[in-house]
Amino acid sequence: MGPQAWRAKRCRRHALSELRAMIIRAATANDADAIWKILEPIIRAGDTYTLPLDMTPEDALAYWHSRGHEVFVAEENGEILGTYYLHANQKGGGAHVANCGYMTAPWASGRGIARAMCQHSLGHAKSRGFRAMQFNFVVSSNERAVDLWQRMGFKIVGSLPGAFLHPTLGLVDALVMYRML
Amino acid sequence: MGPQAWRAKRCRRHALSELRAMIIRAATANDADAIWKILEPIIRAGDTYTLPLDMTPEDALAYWHSRGHEVFVAEENGEILGTYYLHANQKGGGAHVANCGYMTAPWASGRGIARAMCQHSLGHAKSRGFRAMQFNFVVSSNERAVDLWQRMGFKIVGSLPGAFLHPTLGLVDALVMYRML
Repeated sequence: MGPQAWRAKRCRRHALSELRAMIIRAATANDADAIWKILEPIIRAGDTYTLPLDMTPEDALAYWHSRGHEVFVAEENGEILGTYYLHANQKGGGAHVANCGYMTAPWASGRGIARAMCQHSLGHAKSRGFRAMQFNFVVSSNERAVDLWQRMGFKIVGSLPGAFLHPTLGLVDALVMYRML
Repeated sequence: MGPQAWRAKRCRRHALSELRAMIIRAATANDADAIWKILEPIIRAGDTYTLPLDMTPEDALAYWHSRGHEVFVAEENGEILGTYYLHANQKGGGAHVANCGYMTAPWASGRGIARAMCQHSLGHAKSRGFRAMQFNFVVSSNERAVDLWQRMGFKIVGSLPGAFLHPTLGLVDALVMYRML
């Protein structure tokens, strides 16, 4: 086998092992500490989610696992590196539109975890009978998220002027994003 | 006094008595039955609010009086003809934007009660330090509401395609409306 073929094989094997290593599964009660480890720095930073910066672990986990939320974790080699919830964004006549919140461990960003979770959530929402997905409040300065959601098929359908008080940038817009399933 | 002057005087007196008769005040526990009387037909109709059509009185009142909601009633000659809640639409960096839900008794529509409640809520929100007000989900087929909110200074800042399953019209858009305070 020449060096090129060997590299290609190694590459395939690497891709396969990456694929196998990352699983997305329903969260269990045993995941609480790992989920809080991800939530904590993101809530404390206060630059992407509209949650109180001083939220306690109990309140944060109660929010993440609110009634009606299905919670998932992204696990790689036994380590939880991301989590998301999925639920109906509204009740009654609005119950066919899903909403999700995703958080990736800050120490694992850039590895495609948010993308994988979003992909998983789109499939899961569809299998649950949802017909669309809406993000109610994407902070416009969170450009990575805005870019990623657009690449995942979401369109900006609304813009809320100065609706978010960013800890360093001051008032910035928040975006409403939407896609059919 | 000639007939014109007399009519003008009667008109002023009438306007004053109308003004005096309508008060908007904080709701008390004693208002629960009167509030439910308003909520019930609106929830059962299911064409304006994203609430389960079969909601029980207990669940509906618990929702209307959710933690963080300030609830008001519009009272005319001792009869409650409207109710609204006001709260922060988001927490954390989004806590400076208020949100309200208004319901007017169907048997009292066209008498300016929604307008009066909205006016009251804008002043009250401002006095509470809110800097803007957002309506998250105005059903586009509810043209009276869309028109009224526009006359009250709200702009359509977003449109959610087919986000509402109307009981007779099928899927219709929902609007996001917003104004500064």
